[in-house]
Amino acid sequence: MIKVGIVGGTGYTGVELLRILATHPQVRLTAITSRKEDGLPVASMYPSLRGHVSLAFSSPDNARLTDCDVVFFATPHGVAMAQAPELINAGVKVIDLAADFRLKDVALFEQWYGMPHSCPELLSEAVYGLPELNRDAIRKARVVGNPGCYPTTMQLGFYPLLKAGMVDAGNLIADCKSGVSGAGRKAEIATLFSESSDNFKAYGVSGHRHTPETAEQLQYMTQDNVGLLFTPHLVPMIRGMHSTLYARLKGNPDNAEIQALFENTYRDEAFVDVMPFGSHPETRSTRGSNILRLSLHRPGNGATLVILAVQDNLVKGSSGQAVQCMNLMFGLEETCGLMHVPLMP
Amino acid sequence: MIKVGIVGGTGYTGVELLRILATHPQVRLTAITSRKEDGLPVASMYPSLRGHVSLAFSSPDNARLTDCDVVFFATPHGVAMAQAPELINAGVKVIDLAADFRLKDVALFEQWYGMPHSCPELLSEAVYGLPELNRDAIRKARVVGNPGCYPTTMQLGFYPLLKAGMVDAGNLIADCKSGVSGAGRKAEIATLFSESSDNFKAYGVSGHRHTPETAEQLQYMTQDNVGLLFTPHLVPMIRGMHSTLYARLKGNPDNAEIQALFENTYRDEAFVDVMPFGSHPETRSTRGSNILRLSLHRPGNGATLVILAVQDNLVKGSSGQAVQCMNLMFGLEETCGLMHVPLMP
Amino acid sequence: MIKVGIVGGTGYTGVELLRILATHPQVRLTAITSRKEDGLPVASMYPSLRGHVSLAFSSPDNARLTDCDVVFFATPHGVAMAQAPELINAGVKVIDLAADFRLKDVALFEQWYGMPHSCPELLSEAVYGLPELNRDAIRKARVVGNPGCYPTTMQLGFYPLLKAGMVDAGNLIADCKSGVSGAGRKAEIATLFSESSDNFKAYGVSGHRHTPETAEQLQYMTQDNVGLLFTPHLVPMIRGMHSTLYARLKGNPDNAEIQALFENTYRDEAFVDVMPFGSHPETRSTRGSNILRLSLHRPGNGATLVILAVQDNLVKGSSGQAVQCMNLMFGLEETCGLMHVPLMP
Amino acid sequence: MIKVGIVGGTGYTGVELLRILATHPQVRLTAITSRKEDGLPVASMYPSLRGHVSLAFSSPDNARLTDCDVVFFATPHGVAMAQAPELINAGVKVIDLAADFRLKDVALFEQWYGMPHSCPELLSEAVYGLPELNRDAIRKARVVGNPGCYPTTMQLGFYPLLKAGMVDAGNLIADCKSGVSGAGRKAEIATLFSESSDNFKAYGVSGHRHTPETAEQLQYMTQDNVGLLFTPHLVPMIRGMHSTLYARLKGNPDNAEIQALFENTYRDEAFVDVMPFGSHPETRSTRGSNILRLSLHRPGNGATLVILAVQDNLVKGSSGQAVQCMNLMFGLEETCGLMHVPLMP
Repeated sequence: MIKVGIVGGTGYTGVELLRILATHPQVRLTAITSRKEDGLPVASMYPSLRGHVSLAFSSPDNARLTDCDVVFFATPHGVAMAQAPELINAGVKVIDLAADFRLKDVALFEQWYGMPHSCPELLSEAVYGLPELNRDAIRKARVVGNPGCYPTTMQLGFYPLLKAGMVDAGNLIADCKSGVSGAGRKAEIATLFSESSDNFKAYGVSGHRHTPETAEQLQYMTQDNVGLLFTPHLVPMIRGMHSTLYARLKGNPDNAEIQALFENTYRDEAFVDVMPFGSHPETRSTRGSNILRLSLHRPGNGATLVILAVQDNLVKGSSGQAVQCMNLMFGLEETCGLMHVPLMP
Repeated sequence: MIKVGIVGGTGYTGVELLRILATHPQVRLTAITSRKEDGLPVASMYPSLRGHVSLAFSSPDNARLTDCDVVFFATPHGVAMAQAPELINAGVKVIDLAADFRLKDVALFEQWYGMPHSCPELLSEAVYGLPELNRDAIRKARVVGNPGCYPTTMQLGFYPLLKAGMVDAGNLIADCKSGVSGAGRKAEIATLFSESSDNFKAYGVSGHRHTPETAEQLQYMTQDNVGLLFTPHLVPMIRGMHSTLYARLKGNPDNAEIQALFENTYRDEAFVDVMPFGSHPETRSTRGSNILRLSLHRPGNGATLVILAVQDNLVKGSSGQAVQCMNLMFGLEETCGLMHVPLMP
Repeated sequence: MIKVGIVGGTGYTGVELLRILATHPQVRLTAITSRKEDGLPVASMYPSLRGHVSLAFSSPDNARLTDCDVVFFATPHGVAMAQAPELINAGVKVIDLAADFRLKDVALFEQWYGMPHSCPELLSEAVYGLPELNRDAIRKARVVGNPGCYPTTMQLGFYPLLKAGMVDAGNLIADCKSGVSGAGRKAEIATLFSESSDNFKAYGVSGHRHTPETAEQLQYMTQDNVGLLFTPHLVPMIRGMHSTLYARLKGNPDNAEIQALFENTYRDEAFVDVMPFGSHPETRSTRGSNILRLSLHRPGNGATLVILAVQDNLVKGSSGQAVQCMNLMFGLEETCGLMHVPLMP
Repeated sequence: MIKVGIVGGTGYTGVELLRILATHPQVRLTAITSRKEDGLPVASMYPSLRGHVSLAFSSPDNARLTDCDVVFFATPHGVAMAQAPELINAGVKVIDLAADFRLKDVALFEQWYGMPHSCPELLSEAVYGLPELNRDAIRKARVVGNPGCYPTTMQLGFYPLLKAGMVDAGNLIADCKSGVSGAGRKAEIATLFSESSDNFKAYGVSGHRHTPETAEQLQYMTQDNVGLLFTPHLVPMIRGMHSTLYARLKGNPDNAEIQALFENTYRDEAFVDVMPFGSHPETRSTRGSNILRLSLHRPGNGATLVILAVQDNLVKGSSGQAVQCMNLMFGLEETCGLMHVPLMP
């Protein structure tokens, strides 16, 4: 059994980790830290876990995280990088669900997150935790930077096309829509029910942190210069993410050829589902599961290909993907404990 | 492995059965019938099941249901009673999620459902499928009438009090609220998104079919005459049911005594969770799971006890409870395949 | 033109006052105070008011509220009673949307609101602002305590029955449901979209401030001792309130007689709509308007009468009712500026 | 007073017309037709109109529409063109909220709507009812084809840029999102609450009827060949539309210059609100009102301009715009009866 610690288990990615790990057959939950909630049973804060998780939150000072095999950080940006070196030295693997180990370019990190990076040497060792594109490195990693939710959809959607050189890399547009849980469990007016329900808006259109993260990763897929325009929007739903991706085709490939490219690329992937050409995947078809679904459209048989990608932002977009990485890091079946059937309706 | 057939798998209770049974370790899905969708892969109608259910719908004529060990009816009222006798004769057990085998009083059935009962002898043999109150009979049953969603909450909420003779049985009020999925997957204007979201209403206040069903069952718990006033309401949420139950206390028992009564009654039940006195259970704490949570209040320490009960109407209120019955009927662990952690948020 | 000031215009009742007053033909908006937002144009905080309200928030110190004819307090409890005496002395009328002038019993106020009342003499002069029951007193009032949202529905629902002595006053049950905007515009986790959507729960079941307010007012309607059990619930919708009221009939009146009682009571009321017997009013039929709709049911023709009442909690339940009071206090048509057609769907 | 008839008043655009016209100071509602609901008071179907609309539906045969001054068609495609000639001959003006008089190119109409056009001569006379771009022609029109909801946002968003020749007309992308009421009041499974809430999806990505309508109108604005890619999505909200428009800038204009272009273009428009550069308009800021709000972004100061446009799809996107046209056709103030303040929250 893998001994698992969680730092910061009070937010949505934390409770989602708990939901997944509570039934994971190879995991023993060992410690969950929260300075503020020290001593409170986790199930008192989250009654959904009554009968499933008996652990209480413990103060970081008492948590003995160095006894764990792996520690997940479901914390604000900046926490993981402060604590990771000590854990790594103690032989504990680290998976960070925040941004501390995502951007390889330290300057870029410091520019977008407004803080110095406290362990650049660990960052240079860290592996970007997108298993479909980075599986072997994750297997051997000591530190994993789990991808952002939006970046997961953009990378898996554009990857086959960039790899094959089939589209203009310099002119990619990603019009993305997220459920409100992506904003986290923070007391803020903008995400109150009365503010964000029966409403739709864009945000961060002039610039968002997931642009540099995604652009950096897309650039690894092609020799051409990547140009990415990313527009996030807020949808009045709890979970779910829908990315509508636009790419200009080079030449005039046959639609069947493009479809085959996607199907072949993801043929052996348990968590990427390429739907029939012209399908419209719905976010709810992924609710509560680690699956990401893709489909392709070519309106008017023109020069622009439209790729639709949906996922549950808290699972494949965050905690599920982190557990998928953990499975790889410990030599388990990649799908172990992750085969939830989506909840529908 | 238990060979399972489902008649009418296109509605919400049908797809919820599929979600649960797809990961049930002792079940093999053998046949799903739909005359209209004959030949269509189930996962084409419900993309959430892609990769989990490979079966296609088949016409009832070809479905060979008599080869199954058990057949679930997730159909409109009247279908199960027409087909059950043949299946029973072939040694197949039957679990009906509709009302054909719920009401013991045939006249009452015919009055409320507007159709003659076609197999009253089977009805008299049928067992009411509420495991917490009827476990032994269900174990031996050939035909189970799965309880209605509202009746499940009312019975489990009032049972300890009626059994102990602690309240006035003649003056029970149940003010109940259900998510919209309870109305089924039917093309109707009243349950369109634009009609039922951002809205709240009562319905069927002057009379609803779940009143006679519940009153009949409550009457088994007490010698006193049961009087039940039941008021259903529609909540703009997909899943979830919240019943607010009012009962007049006889005498002046101590609150701790009442709380103990409930805790003792349900101490060994895996699927009934008695929360601390004065708690406010939320429907979402049961989303996607087979749990029903109860809590007690005594406003102003007065004569009226308020019992709050929440469940997922499609799980403990329907398909999960049906699988719980199946487990009993086939000698499995009652919790087998039913230990989903609720999806939160 | 009536010169109107608003103290605390940043919450939902404040912005709703602005929406209504912006098109009121007899009103000139003169001052809106907010210490925190001093200088900010109101329409910058609420873009819905762009083109309709040109005023900016001003610090209370500069607001010159004593130049107004009337000042509305859309503030937390305790603010109005601190500022009202000075305004009254300056000849300015005061309408408080919070609780400072609702409860006549000072001890009760101090018990439920946890603060001493700073101007009990003004409280004893203050008029409870429910126009349908208190019209003449409101016309002459200098200080009005605008009713709570829940109490409005309970009073208008029970009033005809208590007045006529038709029900057992000692055993009233009010099972009430409110949209989330009733919780106000405060940064709190419990009312985040991801917490309160797709969810339903009761709250404050063991005791809520609207119980003493309502009980005090109901007691004015009858010689019998009033006993009221009030259970509030939170509905995942923005606006809307639905109260399901239960009362035990004395004797066995004819249903037509009860219906006539209600219709006669409210025949001349512009803002109370008695629907046909057996109707199910929906909250959305009142969205954005000052109307309250009532209907009656008598399940099984038994001893318990069920009264359904719906309103928009921010209009008839709060800001609209306050403007209705203002119209009376200044000798205007009671309906002036209040005839919005509900927004449907 | 203008005598107004409505054909097909049972859908959402019909009831929205009723809401607006019920308080329009220059209108007398004269007839509302519905073959199916003949004799039913409109307020029985729509209780929100109780006290505001006393008319009953009448069969088209008895409706005497030729006595009206203007008739609105809030009907499925194909109805208006069948009845318009007779009305026009009788001197009645016609405003069609469906597509019969939108597309100038008859072949295009027949291709996309799958029916022959029954009065092409009237079509050639008909005026496209977008007042901001077509005001003078609307003033003199006998027949108006009211624009589609999506096309309204796309045209008002792209117009200043195309007119000024500032962007590449051949490469326009419109990623648009609509509330569910846009699908109309039809009994269909796809728009049930349980199907479309807590969910997000694209639809019609490979081709949608609003593409040819918009492309035809955009072409009038420029000499260059227009190329438009339009992707519609469904948002779990009742009302509201958000269009995210992408255009490639020619040259490298200053952002202040582009902002000024928009502000100057719409300076005198009562119903187009250009917000500050870099704003994020929310759909709810337009709920229930005839306003359309625009804002501009230039991510990374790059070559692509992002235009955000929001409106209420049932008001500026449909019924409000139709009344705006009516005002022009009858020489009234364009804003008459249309100055509703948006409902927020």
